[in-house]
Amino acid sequence: MSAKVYVIGAGMTTFGAFPETEVHALAQQAVWEAINSAGVDPRRLEVCYAGHAYQGPCFGQKTLCRLGLTGMPVVNVENACASGGSAILGVSSMIKSGQADLGIALGGEKLTSPSGGFLPLVSDDLDSSMGRVMPAAFAMMARRHMEMFGTTIEQIAMVSIKNYNNGLLNPRCHMKRKITVEEVLNSPIIADPLTRLCCCPISDGAAAVILASEKVARQYTSKPVELVASVLNSGKRVRYNIINESSEMSIRAAKAAYEIAGLGPRDIDVCELHDPFSIAEIVHCEDLGFCGLGEGGPFVAEGRSALDGEVAVSPSGGLMAKGHPLGATGVAQVAEIFWQLRGEAGSRQVPGAKVGLAHTIGGGVSRIESGACSVQILKI
Amino acid sequence: MSAKVYVIGAGMTTFGAFPETEVHALAQQAVWEAINSAGVDPRRLEVCYAGHAYQGPCFGQKTLCRLGLTGMPVVNVENACASGGSAILGVSSMIKSGQADLGIALGGEKLTSPSGGFLPLVSDDLDSSMGRVMPAAFAMMARRHMEMFGTTIEQIAMVSIKNYNNGLLNPRCHMKRKITVEEVLNSPIIADPLTRLCCCPISDGAAAVILASEKVARQYTSKPVELVASVLNSGKRVRYNIINESSEMSIRAAKAAYEIAGLGPRDIDVCELHDPFSIAEIVHCEDLGFCGLGEGGPFVAEGRSALDGEVAVSPSGGLMAKGHPLGATGVAQVAEIFWQLRGEAGSRQVPGAKVGLAHTIGGGVSRIESGACSVQILKI
Repeated sequence: MSAKVYVIGAGMTTFGAFPETEVHALAQQAVWEAINSAGVDPRRLEVCYAGHAYQGPCFGQKTLCRLGLTGMPVVNVENACASGGSAILGVSSMIKSGQADLGIALGGEKLTSPSGGFLPLVSDDLDSSMGRVMPAAFAMMARRHMEMFGTTIEQIAMVSIKNYNNGLLNPRCHMKRKITVEEVLNSPIIADPLTRLCCCPISDGAAAVILASEKVARQYTSKPVELVASVLNSGKRVRYNIINESSEMSIRAAKAAYEIAGLGPRDIDVCELHDPFSIAEIVHCEDLGFCGLGEGGPFVAEGRSALDGEVAVSPSGGLMAKGHPLGATGVAQVAEIFWQLRGEAGSRQVPGAKVGLAHTIGGGVSRIESGACSVQILKI
Repeated sequence: MSAKVYVIGAGMTTFGAFPETEVHALAQQAVWEAINSAGVDPRRLEVCYAGHAYQGPCFGQKTLCRLGLTGMPVVNVENACASGGSAILGVSSMIKSGQADLGIALGGEKLTSPSGGFLPLVSDDLDSSMGRVMPAAFAMMARRHMEMFGTTIEQIAMVSIKNYNNGLLNPRCHMKRKITVEEVLNSPIIADPLTRLCCCPISDGAAAVILASEKVARQYTSKPVELVASVLNSGKRVRYNIINESSEMSIRAAKAAYEIAGLGPRDIDVCELHDPFSIAEIVHCEDLGFCGLGEGGPFVAEGRSALDGEVAVSPSGGLMAKGHPLGATGVAQVAEIFWQLRGEAGSRQVPGAKVGLAHTIGGGVSRIESGACSVQILKI
């Protein structure tokens, strides 16, 4: 069928609160690290897709231009938290269609600022204006899961604990501390039952990966990581039902990606999934097929998603601990999978990882938006 | 090489000031018209790229979801005024790579509002904050052209007159009046030498086109219009020089597009180019090779770009008269070329048009941004 696409380099800033740093400075750092890690001549880059949600016009052009990288097509893409995944799809499509052999997918976001701002509410989103903001939506998801499946608050807390533990091993992680179940449960309530330690921090950061056609990948590395599936979809409006919209999108995207890759959930060694709130990891482990419906609580509590478990989920610390600069997240996930599959993940290395999956959801919680879900599968 | 891509349907709102209308309502109208004109079952659409600059998160998903079109991958793209052209490239790449057979490129923008707002200044754009806003930048371009090549203010005014005349024949045009050289010269100065009638209006609107693989195109129409080239690039920072950045990008994009298409400027029967200010059409007629460097003034004044000229430039009225809702523009241009090549352009029909070119520039005037230029060539 169409041409194969490989990841041959990755870069990422440490995620954290950098209110005084321009987003383009963060993005430049990620781009430069990705280029250096791939060992490519930056003048050979033929295309850039740049994912972000709130960074203003021509984000990608500004970033590359300041590095002296001008001339190539640059497309800025926005799909809320799935922006980074969408950027990877964009570059991948340019390579698959034979329009480019070497490209860069970039994602960046600055959510802190000198004035301490955060995301603006969307003016026409009645749900959000009435209080159904993200933490509230995920709290309702948690309550529903607890009621339907007997999931406990302690199991939900275990997601935070696992991901904070993983994050302690990741020098680029935002939140760096050991936490206990008691601390999670006793931290301030954000939206009952979710406490502050069940919610990802507000982070700034950027990430970039270098994608290449088979021919060019082989010129630069003997360890290319193949992007065997890159799937994006949008929501079907099944919210307020047992299965929420983010699950519906995730289940569908994962199924499509598994089919393209000729693989199944049992083949996945390492996974970075969309865990902005702890309950999300429980739900998405079910959606991606790592465990059955309703089994996500015991799945994490029994250590089956730990670094040495059946599938290592969020070895980087995930959105929960590593941080969640919206547009950067999907690219950073693919960077982490790339490092894991190449055996370059240091003390958080998942032993023998050969196949990895990255998963992001953008929007898909607010009723009027419909959302976006991206799933990438990579293998070495 | 890679698969061929065809345009098989187009839709577009009338451009104008609709402060009380939601942008999604405008976009829905364009999407529905495009679908109907192609005669496709909307459930067969496999991908959407949605171009906009300032319409907030998940613009494309919101638009499609409200039409009941959920599930497909939707990517929102931003490249300032080249956003629409970038959306077309995105869908085209999905088809060329074999990932989709049928897709929709959408562009929309609402620039008026109940509170009468316009574009926010970009906070880190020192040039703009110091007064080098768009009209000023184009005024400097005009002064330079006048000094270098003896271009006259009357020749510059002729662009407005030609495009307003064309627009009178286009029911979807924003500005609908006959104007004279005297009126253009005597309208209020915006940035000397450009008067109000040398500047495009502030418009709302949306446009959409349906793109298909060869196989699917033939199922729906006996008159598919082939998208023979879709080129995007970014700027090289050559501003403050004789050739400005937007020209550098345009010359390079046009050259690449002509090469891909195996065609040259003399083959182009009809062209929609980026004319937010009258001087821009003069400069871009040179950039696209319709006349020599410095000859753009006489070119328009002698009627060589009129509806019955060597190449009909802006038969729709162009940005100048039809209006310029940023993200919609690039898609609306391709819609106009589609109608022209199919002989469906009514009283503004360019007789016997077989090959058309669409050209947009996004950014590329402000020093720190670098910009984006898209060129599409279509033929029937």
